[in-house]
Amino acid sequence: MALADEVLRGSFHAIGKAISLVENGAPEGRDLLERLHARVGDSLRIGLTGPPGVGKSTAVDEMAAVLRARGEKVAVVAVDPTSPFSGGALLGDRIRMSKAAGAGDVFMRSMATRGESGGLARATQDAVDLLDASGRTFIFIETVGVGQSEIEVSRAADCVIVLLSPESGDGVQAMKSGLLEVADIVAINKADRGGADRLEHDLRTAFELGLRPRREIPILATQANAGIGIPELVATVEAFVFARKASGAFQERRRLGMEDRLRKIAEFLVQKDLWGGEGAPERVKEAAERVLRRENSPYGCARALIREALR
Amino acid sequence: MALADEVLRGSFHAIGKAISLVENGAPEGRDLLERLHARVGDSLRIGLTGPPGVGKSTAVDEMAAVLRARGEKVAVVAVDPTSPFSGGALLGDRIRMSKAAGAGDVFMRSMATRGESGGLARATQDAVDLLDASGRTFIFIETVGVGQSEIEVSRAADCVIVLLSPESGDGVQAMKSGLLEVADIVAINKADRGGADRLEHDLRTAFELGLRPRREIPILATQANAGIGIPELVATVEAFVFARKASGAFQERRRLGMEDRLRKIAEFLVQKDLWGGEGAPERVKEAAERVLRRENSPYGCARALIREALR
Repeated sequence: MALADEVLRGSFHAIGKAISLVENGAPEGRDLLERLHARVGDSLRIGLTGPPGVGKSTAVDEMAAVLRARGEKVAVVAVDPTSPFSGGALLGDRIRMSKAAGAGDVFMRSMATRGESGGLARATQDAVDLLDASGRTFIFIETVGVGQSEIEVSRAADCVIVLLSPESGDGVQAMKSGLLEVADIVAINKADRGGADRLEHDLRTAFELGLRPRREIPILATQANAGIGIPELVATVEAFVFARKASGAFQERRRLGMEDRLRKIAEFLVQKDLWGGEGAPERVKEAAERVLRRENSPYGCARALIREALR
Repeated sequence: MALADEVLRGSFHAIGKAISLVENGAPEGRDLLERLHARVGDSLRIGLTGPPGVGKSTAVDEMAAVLRARGEKVAVVAVDPTSPFSGGALLGDRIRMSKAAGAGDVFMRSMATRGESGGLARATQDAVDLLDASGRTFIFIETVGVGQSEIEVSRAADCVIVLLSPESGDGVQAMKSGLLEVADIVAINKADRGGADRLEHDLRTAFELGLRPRREIPILATQANAGIGIPELVATVEAFVFARKASGAFQERRRLGMEDRLRKIAEFLVQKDLWGGEGAPERVKEAAERVLRRENSPYGCARALIREALR
């Protein structure tokens, strides 16, 4: 398949096309992933989430610039409906105007939030796999930290940064919404604004009180729009990953994430092939008739339908 | 299987046990349905739904008494959380004190509303199949007409009676909630109370205005607690069924209902066998490891998992 080869060669145009295929749940997208699976797994996947307006896009751009400068190949997948390059398939691979993207070697893509949230998580992970196979070494998954489904998406990452700002009660909101539960690292952005110390203190108290007892969560101060604290944030991510790889926790998390993903894919396949596949309505109709003619039980027929659809 | 034979012989105790099995989604319940499927299909399934307090239980009891008197074998399955014999598996086959049930030859059972609504619809249809195989000739499915999921359940019936009362704006509520959309027959219960004529007029106007344009909906007046209008209601149900059988619409509805049911069962099977079956967690874990070792793609593995689980 020519498209697979072009993705492997790293063509942005081909990757964009390929992501559209997995986004639509098209069989061609699945074929593509089938062909590329042996090339997937080397990239580092970094989740970045936080409330709207906290500066996620800027932070991602700045981190990408730091990584690019030392030769990393960066990609950004945004599932944030408030993101400036949102708009999904329509806007396609529209490039966000920024330091990093301006250089033209950061791949940026927003995922459409249409359909149910499980579908979005699935498509996002597929897109990340395609980017991984294409040779991108750092892949950011940017999601807005509002609503469980968006937060869920970040679980696909090897390391999740939660970005907060001292303004408008972000800290309290983050604690309430479960946002902090997915955090591996917290960055307090707009740290020059009043209230940053207070937010940090509140977070540390919350962590000490057992909100997140499993391990220590680094808390950093950043001013993304001035690039301040960004190299430190990148270094913290890498230290986190290094430690997790040494302890085996990195691989364990990938495995648990994959188990979750396999579940979502299986449910998707049943939905898609069973009720949406070619000849599916006719097969279901015939099966119903078989039951009503008393030739088979409903459970027997449903089982046969699944087998047939997945053949 | 001894239980299957006892169900076929019509033992209330065996039927109660069998329903508990399908209610729990136990494999034994599915095996039972597998054994009995050739004996399913002769009973008439009558849905009865309406707002809480409208007199559904009384109406069902009175209809059951009319049918019993001429030798029909009646069963009632109630999915109404406000029903006086509700309480699900705990109360089991508790008999509602009434004219019909007092005679001891009406089978009554409430279905637990635990779990998701799709599961309830599935279990209810399974229970009705068991009752059908056991030789019951008239099976009432009593559901409270509040919330889409409860209304959905009534779609499994060959004929749906919507019970309203002149009180408390039942008519307006019924139009708003989509309750009338499932109605084959409307009965205005407590017809001696003020406002019955007004309700009937409103309903006829609504029907004429195209709320339900496909066919004429009979509207009857009943006073279930005095047995008034109940023989006429039974006769209307039978006339409806007779006409539908003659036109082929009866069979068509059963087929469409079965298609719907097969879909629900297939989704249930995937959920149940794939993630809840014996050895399932280990299989998912191994599959995830295969993907991470790059031996297979996520889609390939998910597909294999489904096949394996349904073998």
